[in-house]
Parts: sequence; structure tokens; C-alpha cells
Amino acid sequence: MRTSNLLIATLKETPADAEIVSHQLMLRAGLIRRLASGLYTWLPLGLRVLRKTEAIVREEMNRAGAQEVLMPSVQPAELWQESGRWEQYGPELLRIIDRHQRDFCYGPTHEEVITDLVRQEIRSYKQLPINLYQIQTKFRDEIRPRFGLMRAREFLMKDAYSFHLDQASLQDTYDTMYQTYSRIFERIGLNYRAVLADTGSIGGNASHEFHVLASSGEDAIAFSNQSDYAANVELAQTLPPASPRAAASETMQSVDTPQKHTIDELSEFLKLPAERCLKTLLVEGAEKNTVVALVVRGDHDLNEIKAEKHPLVAAPLTFATPEKVREVCGANIGSIGPRGLDIPVIVDFAAAHVADFVCGANEDEKHLIGVNWGRDLPEPETADLRNVQAGDPSPDGNGTLEIARGIEVGHIFQLGEKYSNKLNAVVLTETGQSQVMTMGCYGIGVSRVVAAAIEQNHDERGIVWPQSIAPFEVVLIPVNAHKSQRVRDKAEQVYQQLLEAGVDVLIDDRGLRPGVAFADWDLIGVPHRLILGERGLDNGVIEYKHRASGDGAEFSFDSLLDEIKQRLA
Amino acid sequence: MRTSNLLIATLKETPADAEIVSHQLMLRAGLIRRLASGLYTWLPLGLRVLRKTEAIVREEMNRAGAQEVLMPSVQPAELWQESGRWEQYGPELLRIIDRHQRDFCYGPTHEEVITDLVRQEIRSYKQLPINLYQIQTKFRDEIRPRFGLMRAREFLMKDAYSFHLDQASLQDTYDTMYQTYSRIFERIGLNYRAVLADTGSIGGNASHEFHVLASSGEDAIAFSNQSDYAANVELAQTLPPASPRAAASETMQSVDTPQKHTIDELSEFLKLPAERCLKTLLVEGAEKNTVVALVVRGDHDLNEIKAEKHPLVAAPLTFATPEKVREVCGANIGSIGPRGLDIPVIVDFAAAHVADFVCGANEDEKHLIGVNWGRDLPEPETADLRNVQAGDPSPDGNGTLEIARGIEVGHIFQLGEKYSNKLNAVVLTETGQSQVMTMGCYGIGVSRVVAAAIEQNHDERGIVWPQSIAPFEVVLIPVNAHKSQRVRDKAEQVYQQLLEAGVDVLIDDRGLRPGVAFADWDLIGVPHRLILGERGLDNGVIEYKHRASGDGAEFSFDSLLDEIKQRLA
Repeated sequence: MRTSNLLIATLKETPADAEIVSHQLMLRAGLIRRLASGLYTWLPLGLRVLRKTEAIVREEMNRAGAQEVLMPSVQPAELWQESGRWEQYGPELLRIIDRHQRDFCYGPTHEEVITDLVRQEIRSYKQLPINLYQIQTKFRDEIRPRFGLMRAREFLMKDAYSFHLDQASLQDTYDTMYQTYSRIFERIGLNYRAVLADTGSIGGNASHEFHVLASSGEDAIAFSNQSDYAANVELAQTLPPASPRAAASETMQSVDTPQKHTIDELSEFLKLPAERCLKTLLVEGAEKNTVVALVVRGDHDLNEIKAEKHPLVAAPLTFATPEKVREVCGANIGSIGPRGLDIPVIVDFAAAHVADFVCGANEDEKHLIGVNWGRDLPEPETADLRNVQAGDPSPDGNGTLEIARGIEVGHIFQLGEKYSNKLNAVVLTETGQSQVMTMGCYGIGVSRVVAAAIEQNHDERGIVWPQSIAPFEVVLIPVNAHKSQRVRDKAEQVYQQLLEAGVDVLIDDRGLRPGVAFADWDLIGVPHRLILGERGLDNGVIEYKHRASGDGAEFSFDSLLDEIKQRLA
Repeated sequence: MRTSNLLIATLKETPADAEIVSHQLMLRAGLIRRLASGLYTWLPLGLRVLRKTEAIVREEMNRAGAQEVLMPSVQPAELWQESGRWEQYGPELLRIIDRHQRDFCYGPTHEEVITDLVRQEIRSYKQLPINLYQIQTKFRDEIRPRFGLMRAREFLMKDAYSFHLDQASLQDTYDTMYQTYSRIFERIGLNYRAVLADTGSIGGNASHEFHVLASSGEDAIAFSNQSDYAANVELAQTLPPASPRAAASETMQSVDTPQKHTIDELSEFLKLPAERCLKTLLVEGAEKNTVVALVVRGDHDLNEIKAEKHPLVAAPLTFATPEKVREVCGANIGSIGPRGLDIPVIVDFAAAHVADFVCGANEDEKHLIGVNWGRDLPEPETADLRNVQAGDPSPDGNGTLEIARGIEVGHIFQLGEKYSNKLNAVVLTETGQSQVMTMGCYGIGVSRVVAAAIEQNHDERGIVWPQSIAPFEVVLIPVNAHKSQRVRDKAEQVYQQLLEAGVDVLIDDRGLRPGVAFADWDLIGVPHRLILGERGLDNGVIEYKHRASGDGAEFSFDSLLDEIKQRLA
């Protein structure tokens, strides 16, 4: 390809409305343009990236035995009514009325359509399992589209749906999809984690999200430094400390703590670290009109999802009012503690491991210090109530946890019979009985992967593409070619040589000043750059620069092809 | 690929609602399934055909220097208001209201969006010409979707738009697109014609439709048997006869023709061929309150488009009322003729070439016979007023015309400044002046090509795919493999051998009875079939059958690969 036949539309200025770096760089590098809120046109350079990403996804899905189909983007309301989602789905579902006043929607997902297809085409257990996927444009009418393609309204998605006779078969395909997704993100060259996700009512290890790690990510991910374990911070388990609790060494006493209601204030006032100060929180109990005390270390955060899953605690988690706190504890919220309460007290593993701790005295403006479980109050009922922190042991027993931010780009999910039941998608079993199929679904936000790749791979000069999805692998820049026939000729010769060797090369024949051209290619982020000028020709060499490392080199023309191939391999 | 990993969904019965053969065969062969009126899901086999078609289109567009982009399918109303089409476009435009009550549509075409993009990105004549295309899902809310993918609501389209400084540059790209479309349909292997199309207000040879010839086509196409000339029958020109008119040999006389008002009745009554009987039609004139007589041969059809383009004739063409006819001619419509009228008379070239003709006498129930131009009435003003017929000379002077039916699958069009003017899409010229760009647009209905290919290529047993877009090139059928380890082993070996040679081969491992499997593959239309059974193994041969010709052969296993490669080449 030649730039003279390619719309290069780089921008010097960062567009004002682009809040995150991938959005800024995709606009500046001329990969996309905004048509309307949440709607983007892919320009030729950007589309090359999208297509390469799509091709990797397709190859790996095919390799995994999934079959590609293409369903309409416009779906009839009747199917959504059958599943119950026509009413349940909020305003993110773009509803459409056709010329005959019939209801449709622009599909944000295709569970209903695929289940309808499969219930008509698959009749026998012999046809199972089957895994059907498509790579298709979807629409989600976000209330506030932002972050460019990270939360666009129209986007490209790979969505797959598998159908099975039983859970074992579903698990098998699920595992294959887990491995397939891992291969996909590895091939693209992204630092990612497969993260345990909340499965709501389904339970089990039945859902994983695939996150690209990037500091701008919306989700905090905890992952082991020694194993594959990864989970959303809110879902990662904490383990009870392995060592026994230290012995009591202080005597409990009550101290005045005037106006010291927060852990920070208390810790500073008492000259004691926050981890010695226990927080007590009163929440509504699972049984009506009961309250429960939850205790965590002062340096830990209560994990509300974990707390509300405790059988004694009401879901959704609801904190007791100040009036209720005073009624139960006889003190204000900043002065309460677990000692002497006549209600259930649930103590986080880590809080139960502290000796000589501080807690509220259940008396206004007073705290107790030197308190010890099993001596000053009973040994507590313990539970996992807090968010994990960096340095915590990994729940799988291998290594310690690190915490990073992630961008969700994929999701695999064991749906079970949720849709097949509603739509009565059944097959005949070996014994001739009718049985509802069990389902899995597997999504990758293809356009989102492109944005996430940039969030993870950029520097102050622009994008640093992973080679697998770069718009071009190599850019060849003849310097001052308009002044030198010999540079033009040699550049053309090198270009043809690389093309013939199958290298994905672009020649920059725009005749820009070298500095301007170099800045463009830094911004666009082509991995390998070759610079050909008079001086190099005099010395029989071509200059090379690696975008990611900034490393330079000079190649003789004889060795050029080998050198490039070696770097592309 | 193995059938065990491919959804084969052939149907024995022809679905009742499928009216044309491509629709029937796409359903029966399991290529598509209906989701709702005009909405179809592509099953795995069908999608392979669609993707191969798409790939050929993409390759040829890229080869022609066009750049691929991808615009949103959902478009804001504002741009359509700017072009004026928000009001002009009928109910085929699927209008959408988003959650913020803003107006959008599901794009049936992208002139507005591309012009908006180009007016922002292209500032200088140096960036011209540019030709941008996409392959994308479109929606047209047909009032009565029918014929499967031939007139679906959601369909796959390749649409390209070129921008130019002047007409010469537009013509250049237009010519390139003409050649590119020809290459595309040749590569696919279709019998097609590039047909001159009506350009409405723009004029010139500025529009061609590409038609796949098939007896079920909606349009009648006239084309030369010796040149590239082709045009819609309604647009094809007729030439004045090259030979002089025969001399008058009869005397004019008036005859009673009671109740003989049609040409057929008259011709039978007078025992004269229809081409000797001239039809006279009164239509409104271009000037207010005038009427004009049009005369064509009895065996010819008036071409209303040609007639209304005549400067003396009102457009749209409007026939005079019976009252008006009587007032002007003094007779009923079935008895009028060109002789003695006090209004302009325009005579078709062919009608002006008839000697000793019959025409109405302008007296009820009477005709004149033995009438001759230049003797009984003046030499007429002539024009091209009729539809061409098979056997007419080709208007380009090469050969004679044949007439066939065609399915429009592509359209190229010189738009001129229609959209760029409305949207003020300007560039700076070499002299620094602002100039509106001139545009071309070029569409191919990709999913329609698939249906048209079937309309052209099928027999009573099913589809006969052109090899280029067949779902697979070769199908390998082991016969009774479940009973024979040796057949299974050899089939697997042949399959691997073909795969390794890069052959697009499918192995049918379903274990069906041979007749059932053969019927499936006849229906699906894979071009080359290999059949491997015990008997063949005994003789060291594999059986071959060519779907299109039905020709069979036996190959030794040594020669198999060469034989197949030769047939695929």
C-alpha cells in the first residue's frame, strides 16, 4: 500500500471531547471519526486494525469447532416477549417500529434469535453439542455514550451460543471457549486476565470475564503473582490468616476520644496503626426487624457483596439508621463496638486475628483500647467480609495477590436453561424423551478490543500497536524523495522486495518533511520503521527503528529482508 | 471441514411461501432461514457463499484503488434533513427514535454520511480523487418483502462513493468501476450484462446497471449478439431502417371495419399482418391544451419513456380522454389515424417505413387500407417511439439485439453535485478557490448476487454453484464407512491429502445412505464430488462426478490430486 492511496487523517490537537487516551489517539491517528453521539466511522487505517482483530477472533473460533452464522441485526419483538426481556430490558434496547407498526429492536445481543433458530433446526441429541457464533454490528442505546469505542452505541461484537444435552457437555465447551479466548488475547499480544465473575443466581464457576489490564480500566482486578487466579476485587476471596493470633498483652481500658469518629482521627489520636482499630457497622438482618454488627479492620474496606451473601444479613445490604444504632448500642455511629452487644456480631477473618485492638465503647466519645477476643468478649463468629488488598495471599493458595485495573473485553457464561426454558428449545434424548437444552454464551467486544489495546499500549508520542493488529507491520519512509531520483528508485525497489516477501508494508510517498512524517508514524504506531535517504544510500544502508522500544539499527540492503523477517517473526 | 461439525439443514419439501427458485433452494439447501418478514439468518453453509462473494468484491475494489471504510448503520436525521431526503424518502426508510427522542434511521444508503465525512477530511484538490467503500448491512423497509434475499429488508451491500474535482476525473473513476464490476461478475462466473440505465435529470451515459441474466429476472434487457451493448428494453434505442421504404403499390381506400378496434381484430379481419396496421395514439402535448398523435406499428409497443422525452409531448405521458379524441379526430379511439389531422403527428421510425399500410379513417368503424406516406398524407416527422424487439439491429451498429431477463445486482452512477452541493462539500483548487466536489456512487447487492447466482445456475436437483462462490469446492463422500474401517481410513487419508494441497474440501461423515447423501449434495450444489467405497477400493479407484455437467470419471488414488487440481483450475 502507498500513502498516496490511503486516507491519512492525523490530527495535531487532542479533540476536546475525548476523555480517555484510546479515544484521543484513535481520533488523532485518524482511525475513526465521530458521526453522532456514540456512532463512529472507521477510516481505512482503523478498519485495517479492526479487520485484523476480527480475523484472529474468527480463526480461533473456527479452530475451536464453532460455526459461523449471521443473524439479522433487526429482531422481532415477539421473541423478546417470549423470553420476557421485551419488558425487562431498559431503554438501552433500541426499539424500532416498522412501516406496518410492528415492534422490532436493533439487537444488543442474540440469545432469543439463536434459541429460536436452534429449537427449529436441532431436534435430536445427536446434533448436540453445537456452538454457533457471528461477528456482527450491535447497538446499545447508552444513556451517555463516552470514551469513544469503549462505550459506543454501535459496536462490533463476536457473540457465540452453545447448546447441550447436559451440564458436563456445557462445561466442556465452556472450557474450550476459556482456552480459545486465552489464545485470542495471547495472539493479539495483550496483557489480560481471565477473571472470575459474579454469576448471580446461577452459581458455580460458571462465568469468567476477560480483562485487558490498563490503568484506565473501569474494574479493579486481583490476580495471583504465581498462578492463573484472577477475580474482580469485589469477588476475590480472602483467606483466614494461617498463623495463630498473637496473645493478649494489654489490659482493656476505656479512653475518652472526643470528636474522634473516623479511623484516621482515632488512629492519629491514639498513636496506633489503623489495622489495630476495628470498625463496627450495623446493618439490617435477614430476619425482619433485626440488626447485625459487622466488624472489619480499620485499614480494610467492607465488601458489600460478600456481606449481603451472609445468611444473617439482609440483601440488598442496608445500613442501620443513626437512631437504630443508638437504640441498639446506646451511642453514636462513631463510638460503637462489638463488646456487650445483644445482637449477632460477625467479624472479618482479619479483624478476628488482631490482638490488643481498639473499638468503640458503645458510649458517646469513648473507645476501648487493649481489647482482646476470647477474653474481653467472646471468640467471634468469623467470615470473609472485606475487599482483598495487594499482598493478600491468593485464594488458590499460590502466591500473593496483585491488584490492577482492567477493561472487560470478553465474557463467557454458562446460561443454563434460562432462555431454552422460556422458548421451549427441546431435543429428543437417546431414550426418545423431550429435554430442554442447556446453553452457554460467549462474547468478545471486537471494536472494544481495539480501544483496549491502545489503552494498554501507548506512550506520549502515540499508539504502540501489538504487531498482530497493527494497521501495517512496516512503514517505509523515503526521505526527501522529491529531490532525489536515486532515493525514489531505491525506495521503490525495497518496497517491492518487501511486498514480494509477503511483508505488510506501507510506503510513505507523501513527500512530507521527515520530522512531520516521523511524528505521524509515531502517532499511528506502526511497529517497524525503515528510513531511506541520501546519506544511507551513500553508506549502503537503510535506517531501522522499532516503535515500541525506540531501538534503532542500520541494515545493509543485502541483509534488510532477513533483518525485517527476524523482527516480524 | 467435516459435516459432523457443520449444520447441514436440507429440507425435502419446498417451503410454501417461497415463490422463486433461489428462495426455495436457499431454504431447501439450508443456506438461510427466515426470522421475520424480509429478515433472514445465514446458516453456516450459506454464510460461506456470502463471504466468498464478499471477498471477491473486496479484492477487486482494493485492486481498483478504492479504500475500505465502515460507517455506522444508524444515521442521524440531521444529515438527511440537510440533503432534503428526510422528507423525500418514503416509508422504505426505517426511521428510529432513540432514548433521548432524537431522530435516526437505519441506513438504506450512505451518500449523506460519506459526504459529511469527506467535507470534513478532504480540504484540498491534492487529496482528490478518492474512492471510499464499505461492505455493510443495510435496511430497506419494503412494503411487501418477498423472493427471499432478492427483496429482503436487511441485506448486505457494497457501496462506494468517489469524489472529484471535475467531470473528467469522475469519468475516469467511473470507467474503472465499470471495469471492476465486470471483473467481479466474471470472477464469480456469472452471465451478466452492463446495461445502460436511465439517468433521470443528469443525462449522458452516466449510469449503468449490472444485471445477471436469468429467466426469473424482473427487468427485460436488450443486448447485442456481437458487442458489449446492453440496455434495459425500455431504454434501448431503435435505429431508423437503413433501407429505403418500399414503393406504394396499392390504392388507398376506405373499408368498413365494424367492431374492429384492436390491432389483432383488425389484422385478422383484413387478413393483413399486424406490422402493416399502424396504431395511432393521442397524448397531451407539451404546450397546454394541445394534443399530439403518436404512430407505431401494430406489432410494436409504444415506449412511454421515449415518448415523453419528445419535445412536443407532455411529461409524464398522459393519454387523451375519449371525449378529447372524438373532438380532435371525430371518431372513437379504435378508428383514428394520422391522415387529415390538424395536430402534430410523430411517427416511429419503423411505422414511417411501412408502405401500403392500414390506419384508422377518423370515422367510426372505418379504416383506410393501401395508405402511403408522401402520397396520401405528408412524409411524417419521425422519432424513436417504441420498445426494441429481438432481431432489431443493435444501436451501436454491431450485430442484432437479443432480449433476456435480468436481475439487477450492481449499479454505477455519476451523481454529479447532487449531494456535495446540498452538504456544501468543497475543496480548495490549485488557485485557492473553493469548489464543490463532484461525486460518483457504485453499489453491489452482495447478498442479492448470491440469490441471482442461484437463479442463473440451478437444475431440477438443486443449485449448481459457480466454483468461485460454492460453499465448498469438493465434497468427499465415503460410502457405508460405518461398516468398513478400510473405507474410513482411506477417506481420511484422501481428505488430509486434499486439505494439505489447499483444496476447499468437505468430508461427509454423517453415515447416511448413499442416495440420501447424493441428493443432499446435488441440492447444495458443491461443484466436485468424490465417492469412495469398498468397490472402488477393490479396484484402486475413487469415483468422481461433476455437478454441473453430470460427467463422471474414476481416478486412481495416485492421479487423484492432479485430476482434482486440473478441474479446479
